[in-house]
Order: sequence, then C-alpha cells, then structure tokens
Amino acid sequence: MRKFLKVTLASALIGCGVIGTVSSLMVKEAKAVEIITHWVPHEVYGMPGEPDNSGKVFFSGLKAKYMGYPKDAQRSPYPGKYSKFWKTLPAYRYYIPDYMYNRDEVRPSNPIKGTFKLEQCVACHSVMTPGIVRDYNKSAHSKAEPAPTGCDTCHGNNHQKLTMPSSKACGTAECHETQYNEQGQGGIGSHASCSSFAQVECAWSIERPPGDTAGCTFCHTSPEERCSTCHQRHQFDPAVARRSEQCKTCHWGKDHRDWEAYDIGLHGTVYQVNKWDTEQFDFSKKLSDADYVGPTCQYCHMRGGHHNVQRASIVYTSMGMSMADRGAPLWKEKRDRWVSICDDCHSPRFARENLQAMDESVKDASLKYRETFKVAEDLLIDGVLDPMPKDLCPDWSGQHIWSLKIGAYHDGEAYGGKTGESGEFRMSNVTDVERLCFESVGYFQTYIYKGMAHGSWNDATYSDGSFGMDRWLVNVKQNASRARRLAALEKKVGISWQPEQFWKTGEWLDQLTGPYIVKNHPGKTIFDLCPDPGWLDTHHAPAEEVEYIERKLKELGMEAGTHDVKQDSESKSVREH
Amino acid sequence: MRKFLKVTLASALIGCGVIGTVSSLMVKEAKAVEIITHWVPHEVYGMPGEPDNSGKVFFSGLKAKYMGYPKDAQRSPYPGKYSKFWKTLPAYRYYIPDYMYNRDEVRPSNPIKGTFKLEQCVACHSVMTPGIVRDYNKSAHSKAEPAPTGCDTCHGNNHQKLTMPSSKACGTAECHETQYNEQGQGGIGSHASCSSFAQVECAWSIERPPGDTAGCTFCHTSPEERCSTCHQRHQFDPAVARRSEQCKTCHWGKDHRDWEAYDIGLHGTVYQVNKWDTEQFDFSKKLSDADYVGPTCQYCHMRGGHHNVQRASIVYTSMGMSMADRGAPLWKEKRDRWVSICDDCHSPRFARENLQAMDESVKDASLKYRETFKVAEDLLIDGVLDPMPKDLCPDWSGQHIWSLKIGAYHDGEAYGGKTGESGEFRMSNVTDVERLCFESVGYFQTYIYKGMAHGSWNDATYSDGSFGMDRWLVNVKQNASRARRLAALEKKVGISWQPEQFWKTGEWLDQLTGPYIVKNHPGKTIFDLCPDPGWLDTHHAPAEEVEYIERKLKELGMEAGTHDVKQDSESKSVREH
Amino acid sequence: MRKFLKVTLASALIGCGVIGTVSSLMVKEAKAVEIITHWVPHEVYGMPGEPDNSGKVFFSGLKAKYMGYPKDAQRSPYPGKYSKFWKTLPAYRYYIPDYMYNRDEVRPSNPIKGTFKLEQCVACHSVMTPGIVRDYNKSAHSKAEPAPTGCDTCHGNNHQKLTMPSSKACGTAECHETQYNEQGQGGIGSHASCSSFAQVECAWSIERPPGDTAGCTFCHTSPEERCSTCHQRHQFDPAVARRSEQCKTCHWGKDHRDWEAYDIGLHGTVYQVNKWDTEQFDFSKKLSDADYVGPTCQYCHMRGGHHNVQRASIVYTSMGMSMADRGAPLWKEKRDRWVSICDDCHSPRFARENLQAMDESVKDASLKYRETFKVAEDLLIDGVLDPMPKDLCPDWSGQHIWSLKIGAYHDGEAYGGKTGESGEFRMSNVTDVERLCFESVGYFQTYIYKGMAHGSWNDATYSDGSFGMDRWLVNVKQNASRARRLAALEKKVGISWQPEQFWKTGEWLDQLTGPYIVKNHPGKTIFDLCPDPGWLDTHHAPAEEVEYIERKLKELGMEAGTHDVKQDSESKSVREH
Repeated sequence: MRKFLKVTLASALIGCGVIGTVSSLMVKEAKAVEIITHWVPHEVYGMPGEPDNSGKVFFSGLKAKYMGYPKDAQRSPYPGKYSKFWKTLPAYRYYIPDYMYNRDEVRPSNPIKGTFKLEQCVACHSVMTPGIVRDYNKSAHSKAEPAPTGCDTCHGNNHQKLTMPSSKACGTAECHETQYNEQGQGGIGSHASCSSFAQVECAWSIERPPGDTAGCTFCHTSPEERCSTCHQRHQFDPAVARRSEQCKTCHWGKDHRDWEAYDIGLHGTVYQVNKWDTEQFDFSKKLSDADYVGPTCQYCHMRGGHHNVQRASIVYTSMGMSMADRGAPLWKEKRDRWVSICDDCHSPRFARENLQAMDESVKDASLKYRETFKVAEDLLIDGVLDPMPKDLCPDWSGQHIWSLKIGAYHDGEAYGGKTGESGEFRMSNVTDVERLCFESVGYFQTYIYKGMAHGSWNDATYSDGSFGMDRWLVNVKQNASRARRLAALEKKVGISWQPEQFWKTGEWLDQLTGPYIVKNHPGKTIFDLCPDPGWLDTHHAPAEEVEYIERKLKELGMEAGTHDVKQDSESKSVREH
Repeated sequence: MRKFLKVTLASALIGCGVIGTVSSLMVKEAKAVEIITHWVPHEVYGMPGEPDNSGKVFFSGLKAKYMGYPKDAQRSPYPGKYSKFWKTLPAYRYYIPDYMYNRDEVRPSNPIKGTFKLEQCVACHSVMTPGIVRDYNKSAHSKAEPAPTGCDTCHGNNHQKLTMPSSKACGTAECHETQYNEQGQGGIGSHASCSSFAQVECAWSIERPPGDTAGCTFCHTSPEERCSTCHQRHQFDPAVARRSEQCKTCHWGKDHRDWEAYDIGLHGTVYQVNKWDTEQFDFSKKLSDADYVGPTCQYCHMRGGHHNVQRASIVYTSMGMSMADRGAPLWKEKRDRWVSICDDCHSPRFARENLQAMDESVKDASLKYRETFKVAEDLLIDGVLDPMPKDLCPDWSGQHIWSLKIGAYHDGEAYGGKTGESGEFRMSNVTDVERLCFESVGYFQTYIYKGMAHGSWNDATYSDGSFGMDRWLVNVKQNASRARRLAALEKKVGISWQPEQFWKTGEWLDQLTGPYIVKNHPGKTIFDLCPDPGWLDTHHAPAEEVEYIERKLKELGMEAGTHDVKQDSESKSVREH
Repeated sequence: MRKFLKVTLASALIGCGVIGTVSSLMVKEAKAVEIITHWVPHEVYGMPGEPDNSGKVFFSGLKAKYMGYPKDAQRSPYPGKYSKFWKTLPAYRYYIPDYMYNRDEVRPSNPIKGTFKLEQCVACHSVMTPGIVRDYNKSAHSKAEPAPTGCDTCHGNNHQKLTMPSSKACGTAECHETQYNEQGQGGIGSHASCSSFAQVECAWSIERPPGDTAGCTFCHTSPEERCSTCHQRHQFDPAVARRSEQCKTCHWGKDHRDWEAYDIGLHGTVYQVNKWDTEQFDFSKKLSDADYVGPTCQYCHMRGGHHNVQRASIVYTSMGMSMADRGAPLWKEKRDRWVSICDDCHSPRFARENLQAMDESVKDASLKYRETFKVAEDLLIDGVLDPMPKDLCPDWSGQHIWSLKIGAYHDGEAYGGKTGESGEFRMSNVTDVERLCFESVGYFQTYIYKGMAHGSWNDATYSDGSFGMDRWLVNVKQNASRARRLAALEKKVGISWQPEQFWKTGEWLDQLTGPYIVKNHPGKTIFDLCPDPGWLDTHHAPAEEVEYIERKLKELGMEAGTHDVKQDSESKSVREH
C-alpha cells in the first residue's frame, strides 16, 4: 500500500502513467519429491542440489526443516524435548526467569522479609544497589502518570517472592502488549523462538556441560525471554534502544556476522561518523518517524517500529546458505520487501541488482562448498577417513553416523547408519575434514551471505568469506591427499591401521552427553530416551516436512507433483524499472 | 619550505644559528643488473635479496614492477587488457558509471519519460526516495548561490538518459577541478589508479566469477571512479569526510590493515576518546587549518587537504614487504616527508627512530619469510610437492608454473615453465605450502609493516603479525616434513604416487578462467589471447622494467652499471638532532 | 566497611535485622608438597592437577611461580637478569626513559644549546611542534597557580640535558605522589611490574631480535615507565583518561583479550550507546564520584580512583587458566571484592552466580586442554613427535627440553632434560603440537576466562573460546594420528627417519638467542651465563617457591603439611542472600 501510494503520487506529480512492463516468465518443472528431499541440512551439509538457480532446490530453508511449535506448546515450552539431558547453571535463572526464577518451587530465597512499597524499595536500594535506582529515577517508568511504574510493578512487593520480569511481564495489556505481540509473531528462527528451541532442542546445548555453552544461552534467551537486553534497564530509554550497537552483543561473530557486515560497510560508516549528531540521527524520534542520514539496524529490520524483526529480515538461512531458486514464489514477497526498504534512499533497481549480486555470490560460495564437501565425502565412501564414524565417540544423540550427511539422503550404510537415518551435528569430537566442511559453509559462506545482504561486498569477499572458502578448499584437499597416501602405503605394506583411542575417549569427551547415553543406556539413543515430539527433528525422515511442504504448495496454488518456477534472471517486477 | 621556515624561525627565536651537522655517508656499489632483477614479485614471493639493508635490493617496489599507463590510455582505460575474460554484475554499473551506466549504448532504461527541472525532481523524489532528498536539502549544493547545484546538474534532465556521476563529473572546471586533479596525480598503487588496473589486469578479478570478487570491485572502484564513497551522498558534507572512519570501509583487513593499525594504536585512541568533542576535533575546519588533538587518517595522508593521498603515503609496498635499502636515494624523499608530518607533535628524532624501528621489524619479517619460502621451494625442487604445478588445474593464465616464482628468476624448468617465464598468482587452487607462503608475507608481514608505520607496534607484533609469521613457519615445516616422509615411504615400497584428480578439476575449479582457456583455446595462454600491452605484465621478462629503471637511475644521476647507495644507519639528516 | 555501612543502613531502613546465615563448610585435606609442585607452568602447560575443584590445586597462580623483586631491587631494575642477551632499538629510549634517555651517559645529543625558560620553550615549540604546545595550553598544568607546571618542570631547562619524564618524574611529593604510590603497590603481574620483568626476564624478548617484539615492549613499558600512555600528553586531561578506550591499546588481542570481552558484552554496549551523553557518563567527575549508567574499565578496576588496578582485578591468571579451588581462602578476598564491585547495580547473588559460571567454564576449558595436552605429550613419550626436542634448534636458553613440560614434573629424561629441569617457552621454533597446545590454553582458554569475567558469556563461547578449544582438540588429534601412522609405516619398512634440518637451522632461526648461545658458549645455557637471581626463575626447581608458599600458608594460619580447604560450591557468604 505504501508502495502503491508512492507510485501513484509519483505518477501524478510527473504526469506519467505507464510504469514498466511485466516480463515474460520462463517456466520449469520440479518434482515435489525433490523438493521434499532438499530440506536444509542436506543443503547446508550435503548440498545435493544442482549448481544453478533452476528452481529444483527452490524450496527449503530452515523453516522447512523445522516442524513448528509442538502441539499445544506455550510460547516458552521449557524445559523442552531433550530436557533430561540439558544442564543449567544457577546464573541462568536471570536469563530464563519464568522457568528458573519466578516459579514458587524454584524461587531463590531472600533473607529480607516483608512487603514493601515503592518508596521503601527506592530508599533501601539507593544504598544497596545505587546504580539501579539512579537509572530508575531517570526512566519514564518513574515519571508515569497518574502513578509511577515502580519496582513493585515488575518485581512484586513481597521480598521473599520477588519476581524477575520476563518479556511476558512487560507485555501485559496495561503495558507493552503491542510490542510483545509483534515480537511473538515471528516463526522459527525469529527472536520469538530463539530460546528454548535453541537451548533444549539443538545439539550444542545438549551435547556438553553448560559452562561450555553459556554464551549460546546468553544470546539465545535474550530477545525471547526478556526485554532488557535491548531496552537497557532500568532506564528503558527507547532512544538508546534505537542505536545500532544494541544489536551487536548477539549479532556478531562466526555464524551471526551481522554487526561486522553492517559496521564495515558504507551504511555502518554513515552511522559511525554521524551517530552523535542529532541533526543526522535524532534518536528521540520514534522509528516510524525516523529520518536518519543512514540506516541503523532497527531502521530496516524493525521497519516503522514493528517488533517482529523477522518480518523485515530479508532472507532466511536457506537464501544465504543454499542454491535456492531466488525467483521462486515463496521468496518473492521477501525480496520485494527487501527492495521496498532500500528505496527510501536507493532506486529499486539498485536494490534489486544488489540482491542479484548476493545471489551470485551465494551461488559461487555454494559451488565452492560442494567441491569441498565432495572431497570429504569421498574419503568416507572409500573408507579412508581418519577416523571413520564408528571410531569416533558417539555424537550427542548416542550414534555413530557421519555428521555431514542427513538420513534421507543415505542410500546405504556407508555413512554409518541405516537408510533414512540422520547424522548429527558434532563440534568437539569430529574429524578434521568434517570440521573443515562445517566451517566452510557455516562460517565463511555465512560471511558472504551476510556481507552481501548488508551491502558490504568487501566483507563478503574479504573477511574470510570468499578468501576463507578458497583456503578451506585447499585444506580439505591437502588433508584428503595425505589420508589417501597413508592408506595406500598401509595397504601396500600390510598394516591394518587401528584408529587411535583418543578419538573415542578422553577427559573432556567423557563429559559429553553421547558417551553418557551409550554408557548408561546401552542400545539406546537420545531419540529413544526422549520420544516426545519437539520443535525440531533432525533424525527421523521428515514426515512433518512433507506435510508442511504440501500445505505450503497448496497455499501457493501449486500441485504436489510438479509446479512452475519463475526464474530469477528473468523475473523483473514492475517496480524494477 | 615549511621545514626551512620552521628551522629559521626557531633559530631566530632562541638565537642559535648552528643546527646539527651532516653525517658522512658510507658508499656502496650495486650493479644495475642486480637491481633490475630484484623487482617486486621476486622480493615478495621469492626474495632472493640479501638479508640486510646493504642497498643491493634497494630499488624496486610495486612501482618498479608495473609498466605505468598503457600508451594513450585515458584515466580510466576500461575495459582493459584482459577484458574478454572479465565478468561483471549488473550492479557494477553504479560503481563504474562511465563504463557501465553513462554510455548511451548501455544506459539502463527508465520507465519515466520527460525532461524535468530541479523542483520537479525534488517534488517527486521526496516521495519516491525521501532519504536522498532530505540529504540533498541539507547539502551545500542545495544552498549554492546564485543557483543550487541541483539533481539535474549531476544526473541530467532527461529522465531516460540520466547519468550516474563519476568522479569526472564532479571534477569539472566549474566545480571541484583542483581536488579531482590532485586525486589524479597519484601513480600506480594510488587512489587514482586502483580501479580498472585492479579490476581488469590483476589475476583475482579475471580468475573467477564476479560474485566471488565483488568485494574487490567495490573498494577498487571507489576512490577512482566516484567521489561519493568518501563524500557521503547526498549531503557531501566535508566535515563528515574528514573523520577517520570514512577510510575504514576499504582500508581494513588481511592485506590492507590500515584501520586496525590506526585504531588500536595511541593515535586511534586519542581519536576515539576525543572525536565528538569539538574543542579537540573541529571537523568544520578545513584540513589545512586542522588543529586536532591527534591525527586522523586524513590529517597525515591528505596533509593540508591535498587529494593525492599517495603523496603522503609514506612508503610503498616494497618498503614494507621487502628488504629494501631504507636509505637509498629513492626513498629519502618519502622518509623525510614521513618525519615532517610527524613533527607537528613529535620530535624528528622520535619520528626517525620509529621509522627505523619499522625497518628492523620488516627486516626480521623478511628473514622469517625467506626461511618459510625456502622450505616450500625445496619441496618443489625435490619434486615432492603435493601436488606439483603440473598436477594442479591451470592458473588464471592457463599455465602450470609454480605460483611463488617469477620467470626472470627461473634458471631452469624446475618451476614448471621455461627460463624467463613467470608463475602466476593462485588463490583457489594451490597447494597448502604455496598458500602458507602467500599468507605469511601477504597478510602477516603486511600487519607488521602497517602496524609499525602507524605507530602501532602492538598491532605489528600481536595481531598475527610477528606471531602469525612464527606460526606459519611452523606450519610450513610441519607440512614439508610430512610430505618428505610420505615420499620416502612411497619410494621405499615402490608406490608411484599419483596426485588426486581433485587438484585438477571440481565443480568450483571448473568455473575458473584458467581451465576455461585450456579447454577452449588449446595451446594458448591468456597472454596469447590478450596480446595488447596493459598496465601490468607479470608474465614476460621485464623489458619495460629495464627501461623504467634505467630512466629512473638517470633521473637520479646514477649510471646504469653501478651507483652509490647511502646507508640508512649512517644517514642522519640535519633535522634529526 | 563500605559493605558494612550498606548492610547496616539497609537493615535500619527496612527494619530487618537478620540478614542471611553462614553455611557450614566442607573441609578437605591437601598436602603442602602437592601444593608446592603445582605452580603455574605445570598447570598452564602440563596441568597434572585433578579435574575438579577439590582444592588440591588450589594454591598457585603466576604469583606463586614468581619469586618477587630481586633483593635490593629498585622499582625499575633495568637492565635485568638476562640483559646481556637483551637487544633494544633506539626508539625504546622514549618508552623506558630512565634507562635509555635520562641518564647522562646515554642522553641523546641535541643541537640546540642553552638554558631556557617556559616562555621560550613555548615560543619556539609553537613553531617546531605546534601540536604539543596547543595541547599544553589546554592543560591544567599550564593553568596551575601560583605558577604553571611548565615544559621545564618535566623536561628540564638545559636543552642539551633534557629529560623524558618517566612515571617517577610525575610521582614526586609536589605532584602526583598518591597516584604513583598506589600504582606501585601492585605485585607481579600488575601495572607496577610489567616492564623490566616482561622485557628482560621473560623468554619472548630475550629470544629474538627487537624488531620482532617491539609490540611487547610498547605495552609492557607503558603503565610502569610512564603516565602518558593513559594520560594523553600534553593535556593530561583526567576526563579523557576515564574513558574505556584508554585501556584498549594494551588490553586487547590473543592473550590479553580484555577490550573485546568488555566491548562485545552488555557493559560495553551500555558504554557505546551512552558514552557521549554527559547525563549518562559525566567524565568530568572524579572516579570516586562517578555515577555512570554503566561501567567503564576504570570504574571497576580503579574503584574509587585507586591507581593499583591489580587491587580490583578480580582474579589472577591461575584463577582463569587452571583448575584452582575457587573457594580456597587465598581467593576468597578477591572473590568477595569482585562481588562488592558488581553490587552497585546487581544483586550479590547475581554477581556470585556469574562468578560461579566462570568457574564452570574454566573447569570445562581445563578439561578440554588436558585432553589436548595428553595427546601431544603421548607423542613425546612414545618418541614419535615430529620432531623430538633434541632435533629442534635450542630454545632461548640454549636447551633442548620439551617446551610444554616444566622440570619439577619430569620424572625422567623423556622430556629431554634431567629430572627437575625445566622446558622453556618456544614460539618460532617449535613443533606443531606444542604450538597447538600453547594456543589452546594461552589464547582460547584466555578468551573463555576473560569473557566470563567481564560478563560476556558470548565472547567466552564464541570468539574462538570454547569453539576454538574444540577445534584445536581436533587439530592435535589429527596431527597425532598422522604422526603415529607415519612412524608405524617407517618401522614396518625399515626406514630410520631423520628429522629435517630446517627444524634446527634457517635464516631466521639463526638470529635467535638459543643458537647464538650454543654456538658461542658451547656447553653453557643462559642460566649458566646469567647466574644472578632475577624476578623469575623458570628453570630451576622452585626453592624460592617453597619458601613463598610456606610463608603464605603461615599467614593463612595453615600448616605446611596439610590444611583445610573450603569448597566453593558450599561457601555462601552472608551477603549472597
């Protein structure tokens, strides 16, 4: 509607009624069975798709892999599917308050007895924790009319039953319901679902002791469980929350390289050299009224102040990490929104050609990864991996299936499991070539995608993006060459090589969940021990996936068997011109 | 003159007429033939010079390697020598406008017809692209007298023949001619020559698909092709352009680690803790009037506002990356300017001793690299490289010569080519040891040089500078040891090792230019297919180099055969004391 | 006292007299002999302690390893124990002025003769070095009453005997004695002892030419030798010195990753988004009056303005890098202070649980390192290291003992020396597995510790912290597997492998101190050549260590033989509740 208004207005102003033409569309066939089998882990780790944007791999992405909320799940379905293998630290209580702090049975004891009024809280805490009180006194909460939103509003009055506010506490009807509801609209992969999902159903937090993944916990509970990560307590000043750095604590590094991509590009530069000039960046204005000289993170991703950042997160992982068909109908809406956000300051053609540049970079990266992957996979198939899956300690689920292959693609037992069984993610205990592959696609291809998506081409190429994938391709070949030469020598001289025991056991490995399961539940895997459906099923053949995809195809008016795919290179929309 | 004035004034003020003495100079001989053979690639990749500052390797640097502008070349000689193998993306049109946007035959179509006045542009675009208009309204352009410099001034009036302003468009006689001309004075390696040269004549952009090198393109077209990278459009406020971060987008990372070196040092710290205090950094003043509390990038490198940054870029690559004679006449002018820039705030002795510290660090780094290189080269010479050049897919030129050796130094065919033929740069498809060598000198020695040059000694040692070179030396030895043990074993047991096919072909490798040439032009190399002289010739024996060097020696009043070299350690200038 | 006041006040205000209870303490025995043998290098490099917090390894840390100041040492005991092998650069004179600039016999000559008054200095230098004068004129020094603190106050009047002010020059009774004395109170590892100690008695600066370690020198002389690194000359404005970035130049990178840990966490975010808002950060106020919205580095570590930063540096290296008993009496004071600093804004329980989270992360990291180390050590013990210590060029001391093992733990000659002799640190010339181990614990475990200590859990996990240690564990296993397979093959076919000569000699290696000693002093080590006691003795059995520990135990009221250890998990202090 906004766009329509703009076009109409523009037409009226310059007296020009005919704007653009609709290009003819090339049409291709793709079988649903192919679609179904191309869900994310395959793309990310195995990538059997074809090396182009033909559309055959057009539909997938992390969304497709996930099953969505479990039936009847509340918004924060702690403790979650694998909770019996999930370990927490006491400090987590501050980060997941509804699960670990606010419930009566786990509420931490407090030596101060009594029920207090706001004035009493402030009087005592201005001595005990003066910084908090100082901040509170500057806040809008303290100045609210007719009565302040006081300590007791959020924490309660009974000092032995104090609560730690969760985002739910802020999102009540009297307070910030709109923002809370908007924030909750995002699907999987969004702020609204990054906590229990990532904490309890993903391998990395289940696999090992909590001290080793506390960093995952901190960020992955932040935007779902509490508002105060982005809205600094106890001032909660929205002017501060509108600055780009607010997003940085979580959105940086290896596989979340958003901050770096933004900061090193021209958008970040405009921000950095103007950010304290109130004429250029007036942060006291609402996001919907923002007239900045350049974009902040929030300006684009929280367009107009909307708290579902996923809404304006232009592409899903699949778009950046696989060789999806960029012009496929499912992506069109996302891509058009991308363009419409850029066109405050750029022409739509500029935006669209930047998007296409991203497509090309991702395609090149995917090809590079596929070559990397194949070198590793061939070692496995030829039985010369050092060591083979069976000779590693079990993965977090208690299995010995190759970590880079997902079950649906196994056509035999070469990968260590039965056809249809999945390998699982490994971090600590994995061969060098598997790790190389993971890093190439999980880290460096991410840099490429994030860099291109943020207009930071230099970051895409330079920061171990393209250059890193080049290097890792050399690494995996070097490794493979040496493994094969050793194997050939051993064969020739009659040595029957036995992989070292340190791949199976060690002081650290013995702390992991996989070995624990194998030792304590012989013959079982975590899937046997935790049979309830969760949000995510990486192991079994994706029945839910099929259902999900079929439903989506139906929504799109496509048949399950074959469908039409619009090719990106020829799909010019009206506003492109 | 400035220095003279200062010295004279100082003398007058304190009544002290005798300032310093001229040291006696030690004189050495060096044969021109040696000089000629020591051009950059040798130094950088092979470094046959002697491990001291004797002066024998004194003359070279990237300048010497390059041939200068091709005959009759315009300032932006697109498409360039290898253009038939150069691929672009549509988005490049915004970055190389004169080549891809402004020419009638490639001008992108625009659905809006008509010829418009400034008022009309502003009226419509305040709806279509409001950010741009908001910025324009704040600009000096919009307030120019007697008439504003309007949208039409730079973009034209005919909406179907709009132009994208290049730096040429800004540099007209009516507008910013001085700055444009100054910017254009730099030689090769400067802002004025970083675009077509690096895009079309260097290996990395020719070697592969454009999505993989878009980051190179973004920065390498920036300062030559358009002013708006540093002068943020559409305000073009010079106060903003004077902030250090403006240089950051391009000048960071692996082999351009300028920002990091500045930012982590004391200069950067002074900037960071004072930059929004107008008493300490008044960016509204012209650079020639700047009285900052500390240096910005621009303060030193655009001394007084001069737009040829190369003028005050203290040393060329050769100075940082090779064991050149630091006191050689060619370098004296650069070094004296270095010191004269520092002496606003530091004593000349301080500056000169920092420069000498850089020399020492670079010398140490060069020794470390030479040891690294030798380990790799010996593998090649002994035929135990994994794999040998012939077993890799062809380099970007279509050849199989070792990438770390340049032709003029080959005394035989050990390197894969004939005597006098060059190896070529490889990135994607190279052995581990070649890559290790490239990284050691191309990345880590760069950090050392950049860190020391910016007074950030800590960055030189710490950020994978010295420590990185230490590590890579271990890496290359480890690799070489294993390669030799495998080769010895294979020999002993009678295995004739055949390098893996993945070194020759793969999904990604097959996209590269080298394999394409070999397949489509059997028996030819890129040098055969693109015989025109360009700016750069890495392959042939450097006839132009000889001519260039002889001319330079003549300018310096030296004979071609032998010449005098001043040794740095004894060359104290008057102002040193 | 401060805490007491707060508690009392709080009690009065809310009428609640009973605050908390003292938990019962679990008691364990640990033999002093075990304590004594568990000094830092063992923990850091060998870590023979038990994989828990039992208290057996409770007492150690770098403090314990060091011997303290040599007898009769002045505060800056240059040139130090190994000075005959220590090389400097002329520029060092500015960084170690009392040693290299201010003494008559080394004072640099200056061509300007005469004795000058302040007015004359200013008049001339406003031409010669205008930036300095401009800054001086803004300083409090220039405005001091009754007379300005002039150029001559700090540099002297005689232009041929000018001095370069050291921190001693600032710390006179008339000037900044309090700050100077406070700064000097720190023990080893503090600002007050980071210069000659690290320059002349640690391996890295003795091992090699000065150009390669200038970065070490810059930072390691900074806070001990001169005030101007943190107090920017020549304004010396304390408001500027209070900004966090002032600490950044030194406190960043590989093994000092403080800045990154702060900057990426929420504390850093609060700083970054508020730092130029004087209502939130009023840097004109003294640190003792600071009422910032969030912590700066100085706010916590220079609590109230105290210049001994070690006082409020919460934990020593041992606490972050080893499996010490966190509840041991020696640590209690440190930990309680940690909590008391946090409780301006956080509850003590929050602080304490964050501290406990750090303990868990460090414990996990230590286990991971122990597994890493064991893989490497087993290669040595089995004689299949590539190469063995004897086949490397000598370490900086002139020895061939394994770099990852310290003498006291050798029970035989497997490590290359006699029982009781130490290995020494190696950087340039070391096997891959030794380097992997060093990096795992020296870099990545540091990131974990620093990240957790600064409330940046994400940095601990993410920035090559936990993830890096995972990766390096893979690396060392991969290396070990290949080494063993090669050795087995060689044995089988009767090859007697001779390590490559490049491990022993090379252009760079030949510049190092170890080979120099072996060549020029056959049969001697640096310990023979420099027999004087210094601050540090890494080589000999730690007799001083025993004395130190015994004295400490006595101070703590414990016997030498056994003692009681409080376990952290049950040691709840009063204020925890």
